[in-house]
Amino acid sequence: MDALFDRHQPTLAAALQATQDRGYWSAYPETPSGKIYGEAAKDDGLASYNARLGKPFALSGHPETAQIGAEVSPFGPPLCITYPATDVETLIAASQAAAPAWADTSVKTRVGICLEVLARLNRISFEIANAVMHTTGQAFAMAFQAGGPHAQDRGLEAVAYAFSEMTRTPTQAIWTKPQGKAEPIVLEKHWRIVPRGVSLVIGCQTFPTWNSYPGLFASLATGNTVIVKPHPGAILPLAITVSVIRQVLAEERFDANIALLAADAPGAEITRDLVENDAVSIIDYTGSNSFGDWVRRHAGKAQVYTEEAGVNSIVVAATDDFTGMCANIAFSLSLYSGQMCTAPQNIYVPRNGIETNDGHKSFDEVLVGMVAAIDKLLVDTARAAGICGAIANPATMARIEAARGLGRIVRDSASINAGDQHTATPLILAVDADRTDVHEEERFGPIAFIVGVADATDGIEKAASLARRKGAITAALYDTDEGRIDTAVDAFAKAGVNLSINLTGGIFVNQSAAFSDFHVTGANPAGNASLTDTAFVANRFRTVMWRRPKAAGRITM
Amino acid sequence: MDALFDRHQPTLAAALQATQDRGYWSAYPETPSGKIYGEAAKDDGLASYNARLGKPFALSGHPETAQIGAEVSPFGPPLCITYPATDVETLIAASQAAAPAWADTSVKTRVGICLEVLARLNRISFEIANAVMHTTGQAFAMAFQAGGPHAQDRGLEAVAYAFSEMTRTPTQAIWTKPQGKAEPIVLEKHWRIVPRGVSLVIGCQTFPTWNSYPGLFASLATGNTVIVKPHPGAILPLAITVSVIRQVLAEERFDANIALLAADAPGAEITRDLVENDAVSIIDYTGSNSFGDWVRRHAGKAQVYTEEAGVNSIVVAATDDFTGMCANIAFSLSLYSGQMCTAPQNIYVPRNGIETNDGHKSFDEVLVGMVAAIDKLLVDTARAAGICGAIANPATMARIEAARGLGRIVRDSASINAGDQHTATPLILAVDADRTDVHEEERFGPIAFIVGVADATDGIEKAASLARRKGAITAALYDTDEGRIDTAVDAFAKAGVNLSINLTGGIFVNQSAAFSDFHVTGANPAGNASLTDTAFVANRFRTVMWRRPKAAGRITM
Repeated sequence: MDALFDRHQPTLAAALQATQDRGYWSAYPETPSGKIYGEAAKDDGLASYNARLGKPFALSGHPETAQIGAEVSPFGPPLCITYPATDVETLIAASQAAAPAWADTSVKTRVGICLEVLARLNRISFEIANAVMHTTGQAFAMAFQAGGPHAQDRGLEAVAYAFSEMTRTPTQAIWTKPQGKAEPIVLEKHWRIVPRGVSLVIGCQTFPTWNSYPGLFASLATGNTVIVKPHPGAILPLAITVSVIRQVLAEERFDANIALLAADAPGAEITRDLVENDAVSIIDYTGSNSFGDWVRRHAGKAQVYTEEAGVNSIVVAATDDFTGMCANIAFSLSLYSGQMCTAPQNIYVPRNGIETNDGHKSFDEVLVGMVAAIDKLLVDTARAAGICGAIANPATMARIEAARGLGRIVRDSASINAGDQHTATPLILAVDADRTDVHEEERFGPIAFIVGVADATDGIEKAASLARRKGAITAALYDTDEGRIDTAVDAFAKAGVNLSINLTGGIFVNQSAAFSDFHVTGANPAGNASLTDTAFVANRFRTVMWRRPKAAGRITM
Repeated sequence: MDALFDRHQPTLAAALQATQDRGYWSAYPETPSGKIYGEAAKDDGLASYNARLGKPFALSGHPETAQIGAEVSPFGPPLCITYPATDVETLIAASQAAAPAWADTSVKTRVGICLEVLARLNRISFEIANAVMHTTGQAFAMAFQAGGPHAQDRGLEAVAYAFSEMTRTPTQAIWTKPQGKAEPIVLEKHWRIVPRGVSLVIGCQTFPTWNSYPGLFASLATGNTVIVKPHPGAILPLAITVSVIRQVLAEERFDANIALLAADAPGAEITRDLVENDAVSIIDYTGSNSFGDWVRRHAGKAQVYTEEAGVNSIVVAATDDFTGMCANIAFSLSLYSGQMCTAPQNIYVPRNGIETNDGHKSFDEVLVGMVAAIDKLLVDTARAAGICGAIANPATMARIEAARGLGRIVRDSASINAGDQHTATPLILAVDADRTDVHEEERFGPIAFIVGVADATDGIEKAASLARRKGAITAALYDTDEGRIDTAVDAFAKAGVNLSINLTGGIFVNQSAAFSDFHVTGANPAGNASLTDTAFVANRFRTVMWRRPKAAGRITM
């Protein structure tokens, strides 16, 4: 049964080393290249995706009392795919029925299966890229990277941490307690891993795989059964994932219902019923703060791991590369039209301007520089489409419209091609810091505020304070004063937000790399957990012992 | 500042190794011997204890608006000690004011201070033994062991796990991402440990130090400030502990208010106000299930670690040492008059008896054997007093009285010396398994039921089911059938309870040894946490990063 573990053991070992080193490492190549994935992979992936459209999604043996599905590509067409769906009680019962054999399985067998699933997911990265693209609105290249290899890396990271924790305590030991001149007391002790039970993964629309894989694979590796509840607008990427898991489980002679899909329809979501079910003992949630708060309050005794939302800030204090700074920020604001939990919203700029390698720049000159950089980045419509993708949710379009009245428009949002209804470039507004009602609310999507502050220190304080109060997943600083940089490092650390300083090249504040960057700290309202640290995996299982006086021959150490 | 860390580093290293090996290891000798602790240690400890009686307890610089204290020794006399006390808001404000410097301190400095505190607590183990004895009712030898060295071992174990987790991620790394033929992107990354904030430790009356030290030292080591809320009947052992912590903190030029005592009076407890305070971000709780449930529901966003209660069982299926079995069970039932979260309550015995090395024993013969073993153990009153100690809480006396009507009394409870009001030997009742209303409720104290079951397998099933439903911290089995033992191992593991098999010598089911036995699994209603595993420490702090393009000379790896 450990053939899969043995096959993938080198990958696991490298992943474990990477979590220690935290330098650059990736198991799954991020380049959608035929040389890596096979020359036919791109066409095959598209063909596989197309073959799924317009028909029921097959999940052999999955509980089913209805077929549900109403996904519409943000790029236009409805997917017309339906998925097997049923009520919460049936899902829970099927999950619990599958549980005992999975719980009793060895760590190596479970981890081997998880690693095989990740390897197979990697092989179908092109198909998943199309599925992610047409449910999230991400452009193809991003859908491939974030939805495919990067998500797989995050899944592998979770498996590695889970393996490390599950093997931290030996499975047996001899306990010999001296008794002075008398014979010592000698006990043999045995420990085993006991999973918590049924694990619920609640996916989001914008990153259905990247944000779900850590919790999914952490729970699966630690012996829990998993019910995957996708956003009703982004079912397909997780349905494909669940189908691959079920396939490997069935091949290894496990009940495929160890992994279930909880598909539901917009307006008839079953999420609340799942969260409130007493049998659910672990919940991974990605989504809004308001529903996250509801989940935390109604989860009962379940362990809850959340990535919610916040307001991310950039403080522009000074720079020795004004052009590079503006280009870098322009990309961060434009990428996937700001529909990232890591995208910046507020850019704090001193009202009297900043010092740069091009001399002093007034507040308005900084604005102009950033707007020009965005315009330059997006002037070519094909390139713009490749960066911005499409808007996943009509509510985001409405939010852009409403935001236009919130400040001085220094760059208006527009569709990439005239008349198209599903794209939106960044809307940039200038406001003063005192308009906290405007810029201290999260406004998800391509909406950013350039916020006038007294000086750089004021900007750092305001950004850090906002992160502490409302949550933030990323923060960025541009500065040339090392003393002030040290102050900012302290301020953002106390606010529990990861800080990027002086990014001007091909790396962006939005990016979070598995095996090196912890995504979300869990130390401010943007989430209570971190992808992936020990705390994310260690409480998904418990360790139980039996002990007895040692008898000759029964145990050898 | 790291002199303390360097001094105690060998102890820490040995502790870390012990948590891996999980064989027998202890840092602090459990024998109250003059050869180990100094010939004068016993008298000095008693003198120090006596010197505290009848006067205010000095905690220099501690917030104080009143003096509170109403402890009465279970052995008779009131302690007449008062403690500095104040309202919750003042405690929280003092804790928060002390927090920043402690959070900013290096891991080594904090861990060094914790290790120094533990070493000093060890040196005053005789004083603490007297304090524990006269607040809990434990006999002196047990008060010394459980209240002194064993509690210190549990504290050290928590510090070791905390150190291991805090040093798992490097403080810095170089991240070099290849860019094909272009120059790689090179970032330097820096990580730091950020504590959660104010930590609340809620102590219990029966094991004020043993049950509090793990949470207290885990939170302190990870950079949180700590408010220690003792049971109003057992303040002194934790007041001494807090005073030692404050002394070391002050010597190391930290604000002593990093550790605060939240003394309160019976009937005017401030626990609920502390739990509901938004500033409290970690809660460690030992106590009843009903209040534990309240704590979990009212803790808001705080991390909650509980040891609650359950009903512990022994299944008697067969034995090849009937006398040894009866003697072992007799001691487990008598020790500290059953006032241990680990003490057995239900002893499941087949109605048609069991096979033993002395031939078949009927149900009643098993009863008689156990009762005789208890009587023999306690026949000498001095020895009985040394085993049973005193009853900590009058409610336990009332519970014994009420329990007399619950079944057939096969051994009545009695005082050790005629007429004394504060001791009680075990009450043993025989009931049939169908009286679940009787034996499936926790009846804390020297109350045990010998429960008639169909056969050994029925007993195993009933005991495991009870553990799963109501919680259990320990389980024991006596059996000679290896196949049935395997079945029991599986059943109790699934119920999340540690199992001891065929204990007949000088080791008892009640005993849980630091560095080897995990105390409570967190996998059934007897508690949600385990002393001590990774999950107990890893979420008491968060890891926050800053990153920037690597500049020559700024970082060397």
